[in-house]
Amino acid sequence: MKKWASILGAGLLLALPALGWAEDAPLTADAVQNNLNFVWTLIAAFMVFIMQAGFAMVEVGFTRAKNACNILMKNMMDFSAGAIGFWAVGFGLMFGTTNGFFGTTDFFFSGATGDAEAWNYAFWMFQTVFAATAATIISGAVAERTKFSAYLVYSVLVSAFVYPIFGSWAWGSLYNGSGWLEGLGFIDFAGSTVVHSMGGWLALAGAIVVGPRIGKFDKAGNVKPIPGHNIPLAALGVFILWFGWYGFNPGSTTVGDTSIALIAVTTTLAAAAGAITAMLATWLKYGKSDIGMTLNGALAGLVGITAGCANVSPLSAVIIGGIAGVLVLFSVLFFDKIKVDDPVGAVSVHGVCGAWGTLAAGLFDSAGFSLKTVGVQLTGIGACFVFAFGVGLIMFKLIDVVIGMRVSKEEEMAGLDYTEHGASAYPDFQTVRLGTVFAPGQENVNGPK
Amino acid sequence: MKKWASILGAGLLLALPALGWAEDAPLTADAVQNNLNFVWTLIAAFMVFIMQAGFAMVEVGFTRAKNACNILMKNMMDFSAGAIGFWAVGFGLMFGTTNGFFGTTDFFFSGATGDAEAWNYAFWMFQTVFAATAATIISGAVAERTKFSAYLVYSVLVSAFVYPIFGSWAWGSLYNGSGWLEGLGFIDFAGSTVVHSMGGWLALAGAIVVGPRIGKFDKAGNVKPIPGHNIPLAALGVFILWFGWYGFNPGSTTVGDTSIALIAVTTTLAAAAGAITAMLATWLKYGKSDIGMTLNGALAGLVGITAGCANVSPLSAVIIGGIAGVLVLFSVLFFDKIKVDDPVGAVSVHGVCGAWGTLAAGLFDSAGFSLKTVGVQLTGIGACFVFAFGVGLIMFKLIDVVIGMRVSKEEEMAGLDYTEHGASAYPDFQTVRLGTVFAPGQENVNGPK
Amino acid sequence: MKKWASILGAGLLLALPALGWAEDAPLTADAVQNNLNFVWTLIAAFMVFIMQAGFAMVEVGFTRAKNACNILMKNMMDFSAGAIGFWAVGFGLMFGTTNGFFGTTDFFFSGATGDAEAWNYAFWMFQTVFAATAATIISGAVAERTKFSAYLVYSVLVSAFVYPIFGSWAWGSLYNGSGWLEGLGFIDFAGSTVVHSMGGWLALAGAIVVGPRIGKFDKAGNVKPIPGHNIPLAALGVFILWFGWYGFNPGSTTVGDTSIALIAVTTTLAAAAGAITAMLATWLKYGKSDIGMTLNGALAGLVGITAGCANVSPLSAVIIGGIAGVLVLFSVLFFDKIKVDDPVGAVSVHGVCGAWGTLAAGLFDSAGFSLKTVGVQLTGIGACFVFAFGVGLIMFKLIDVVIGMRVSKEEEMAGLDYTEHGASAYPDFQTVRLGTVFAPGQENVNGPK
Repeated sequence: MKKWASILGAGLLLALPALGWAEDAPLTADAVQNNLNFVWTLIAAFMVFIMQAGFAMVEVGFTRAKNACNILMKNMMDFSAGAIGFWAVGFGLMFGTTNGFFGTTDFFFSGATGDAEAWNYAFWMFQTVFAATAATIISGAVAERTKFSAYLVYSVLVSAFVYPIFGSWAWGSLYNGSGWLEGLGFIDFAGSTVVHSMGGWLALAGAIVVGPRIGKFDKAGNVKPIPGHNIPLAALGVFILWFGWYGFNPGSTTVGDTSIALIAVTTTLAAAAGAITAMLATWLKYGKSDIGMTLNGALAGLVGITAGCANVSPLSAVIIGGIAGVLVLFSVLFFDKIKVDDPVGAVSVHGVCGAWGTLAAGLFDSAGFSLKTVGVQLTGIGACFVFAFGVGLIMFKLIDVVIGMRVSKEEEMAGLDYTEHGASAYPDFQTVRLGTVFAPGQENVNGPK
Repeated sequence: MKKWASILGAGLLLALPALGWAEDAPLTADAVQNNLNFVWTLIAAFMVFIMQAGFAMVEVGFTRAKNACNILMKNMMDFSAGAIGFWAVGFGLMFGTTNGFFGTTDFFFSGATGDAEAWNYAFWMFQTVFAATAATIISGAVAERTKFSAYLVYSVLVSAFVYPIFGSWAWGSLYNGSGWLEGLGFIDFAGSTVVHSMGGWLALAGAIVVGPRIGKFDKAGNVKPIPGHNIPLAALGVFILWFGWYGFNPGSTTVGDTSIALIAVTTTLAAAAGAITAMLATWLKYGKSDIGMTLNGALAGLVGITAGCANVSPLSAVIIGGIAGVLVLFSVLFFDKIKVDDPVGAVSVHGVCGAWGTLAAGLFDSAGFSLKTVGVQLTGIGACFVFAFGVGLIMFKLIDVVIGMRVSKEEEMAGLDYTEHGASAYPDFQTVRLGTVFAPGQENVNGPK
Repeated sequence: MKKWASILGAGLLLALPALGWAEDAPLTADAVQNNLNFVWTLIAAFMVFIMQAGFAMVEVGFTRAKNACNILMKNMMDFSAGAIGFWAVGFGLMFGTTNGFFGTTDFFFSGATGDAEAWNYAFWMFQTVFAATAATIISGAVAERTKFSAYLVYSVLVSAFVYPIFGSWAWGSLYNGSGWLEGLGFIDFAGSTVVHSMGGWLALAGAIVVGPRIGKFDKAGNVKPIPGHNIPLAALGVFILWFGWYGFNPGSTTVGDTSIALIAVTTTLAAAAGAITAMLATWLKYGKSDIGMTLNGALAGLVGITAGCANVSPLSAVIIGGIAGVLVLFSVLFFDKIKVDDPVGAVSVHGVCGAWGTLAAGLFDSAGFSLKTVGVQLTGIGACFVFAFGVGLIMFKLIDVVIGMRVSKEEEMAGLDYTEHGASAYPDFQTVRLGTVFAPGQENVNGPK
């Protein structure tokens, strides 16, 4: 409100340059650029925030109607709990003064004062939506059979501890000191590894510990597809995610300057190429173009370009995204084959294509190919897998022992909306599958005990 | 197009600083900051605009399939009619030269010329989406039984007269003179009172005058829940609203500078805390976490922080939002108890939590606690309730007498989509409740005459 | 990552002006304005991108459940294929050094180096989302009976050749030379003709060549409405499109300055007026306000103001949008009468209202009325119709001969989701119309052979 009064001056600046705030504080171009950096970084953060809606719609759309409310609750809560956890602990672990392995200052915004404090706020906003992205990736892979209470626990742990600790290795030098990975020269501009592979390998650990959904694999070992219940919402989710990625990748400059244009271009071309190659791959393989895989192909392209969006050419972006679109198909088939049930393909999209993108950022580096760079990229990819999958297995196993990861057979059949939340997502519609009862072939050898 | 030619110069500025538009008009840093203020304020306004989609989805999702088209029409029309009304009358009443109680200039953009005119356009854009927000809040509370023609009438009245007059009391000093409330030092940075409580108390008046939906309360006085028909759309709506709030709160600076960062942080933390406490409160009370209340808890946190988003600390924001999340649950139970039927909880979310947020902006003021400030906040809260609820009762009663607020019993049972618009929202689906007929228990003692 | 390190300097600029990047390169106000132009243009481009989600939701919502996946695939692919095509060929044809009729340089980003290259990236990003808009407009008009393979072919042709060639006539002078239309003084600020009429007339040619859906017109020549299956998604789509239009129109300045405010205002008022007049027109004509037409009325207003958004007054915008809202109703009735089946009204919204808006930009020119200007506008409108409709007829006929435009009768009845993609959009819901079999009256005299 006080601001609004002062804007009068700003509004009349051109007309009356001697009046208004110009009187109070003559502006320098550097100060205006600083303001522009804040505006750009925050708008980018807001765009990454809306990716939460995208993830929610993708996950709801690709799963069954009887679990829709549960998935929405999980998406709402992983951002909410994640934001609180990242404020209290995560931001300090990731960006506080670091010993090379984690930060030890800046918890609860305690570290900065004066103008640095304002930038801390802006940067926290941007980083919080990244942390929440890592956490929400997991929810798709463990959907339709995970206890809500278990979900809440690991969701906070990931945002507050797991994501920030690895993140400090690759990006922690922002304020003081340097993470060991970035010290080696690791390239991950916007987080193919730090955010997406991190989420993807945690998702893999979660999907393994919680086990496949009832009915996904029969006793003979065949895979039985469980189609998603609302494809328009899933497609809407992909469009929203793509939109949000323009905050995710270009916004990672955290500086509003001309370098953001190339990043927008590479992001666009990689996503487009991923959608096209995934569509063509399914068409060639199955005789029909598959919508679920095409949508995941666009996401695969986006994940793939995230590491190298600022240091590869537009042509390289087409190649990187195109390969990601094919990779995601074969990765999904692979995880089906080894009986890991990932309802939305999160492990393939984020884990596998995140690793591919991180490698590609080295292979296609505009600064020229160097074996050393590729070696560092592989080191980072490996470190992420070992850390995320290892910590994930331990974390999910512990949760399983203490509070249990999985709902009962009866709850899973009835649907988590009813059993966990006493709700129905679509009470006005006649639905099928809600009242599904156990059929002999549906009893899953890998199901809950 | 002409612009596009001149951008050539801008695009080459760094390469050829002597060419391009730099030649025409050497820029000052103040002029660039002024441009940045326009860009920021307008992007924020566009983000607030998309809140209309959020409100539409929340209201559609939380009500029945048979009334979905009607609700969408109302949301589309309250923005459309509101924009025309706010252009013609509202903006002048709110921001024109004021006598302390309403403005008397600037109708139809008549007041400003030259550079001030450009700012008038930008500021109108931002304020129009605020006015429409106040109007659209009401629609949820009177949903599923209000005549479309009555809706159109009060929608225009609110945007053109009711909202702007109160608004001028709190924010009217923008150009000339000062509203009486802001003269006292009233703190309402982005509108917990001016927008949300205003909409909420009008909604309360509307819900009382139009009466509860058939079947909501039985003759024995019991509350019968009428579950919403599309929870995924409702959740999508909440995510969109949360996204739009980043335009609503930080955008209220109308200046693109570093102060927006703290506002983004407090907004995020309050929303997160609200969602968490609302979820926990339902879990404790009912043994299961409720999705509708959790979604409303996030909104409650957002409404709660709107007044104080720029003058409280991050920790205070967590407390303010957390209290709002619990408050909304007990408020909904209270209005159920006194037999006010508010299908989406608009009165609780916007009215009650708006009042709480306005009080909290005084209680948690970073400038330090002062009884005088709290007194002024209470004065503003009280003034808003008396004005909005009073004017609302008179307005809705008058509309009820002249054209009738409520559809007939038969129309309500058949659904407003069919009777008001000759439409069906989901003609390809088997729906239940559409063909509902009168059952003895469903006849509502408080229903239409 | 490297960027993130340097931001430290930016973040501390105000505190420590001697440190950070300010040290490396003292900024001029012109350089900051240049950065602001990039930020503004790219954010506007991202907003236009999300219009793809809007178009997808509108088209899905206004058609039948059995074709939803197909429509989503088409929307995903026309952007993806369009982006690749516009990168490879389209951008050069449209903006490369022109002979007056098409450009001949800048294919695959080959034309620019240094700082001009960065602007090329930003401008390509903005223009790509425009090209994709033109392509996606067609999909609605040919929905529910067009082969997916045929769709892919014409989608690439439109983005890579048809749209850019006409575009170069009106906007091609950006870098070198001048298109013949802009040489005459043609006014089309953001593309009522270049984007919308282009898409609309191509859509008309497509709808004629592919023929009406089975059941749309009976043997007696009566029109049988085929209602859309998900009106909430359609309405969501319209809100998203309206939001994206704030990138489309104001963003067309590609300069972040105060001129964007008027454009935001005219865009808002025209859309609002269009929604209102369309609603009133159906109310007067049918006795009930129609939701589909009201939603299209808002879009009609937006299309109508696109040409003149920067050179007409707010009052003129209300008139232009209001006329567009009525025009779209009568246009839809006209195309029904001449038996052109356009499931979503794309020809009327984009073709007809685009032409109206282009004329209106001349009629209501703030610079004063001039017969010469109106003549030029009519020339541009005519040139677009002749070129787009002519090329469209040839292109679609050729595709029809070579690979076939239309699916078989059996495929159309079964739904394209199943026959083209082996999918179902809503497997958990009981749907009607999916299993529809041939009824005598439903056999369409204009249907597929």
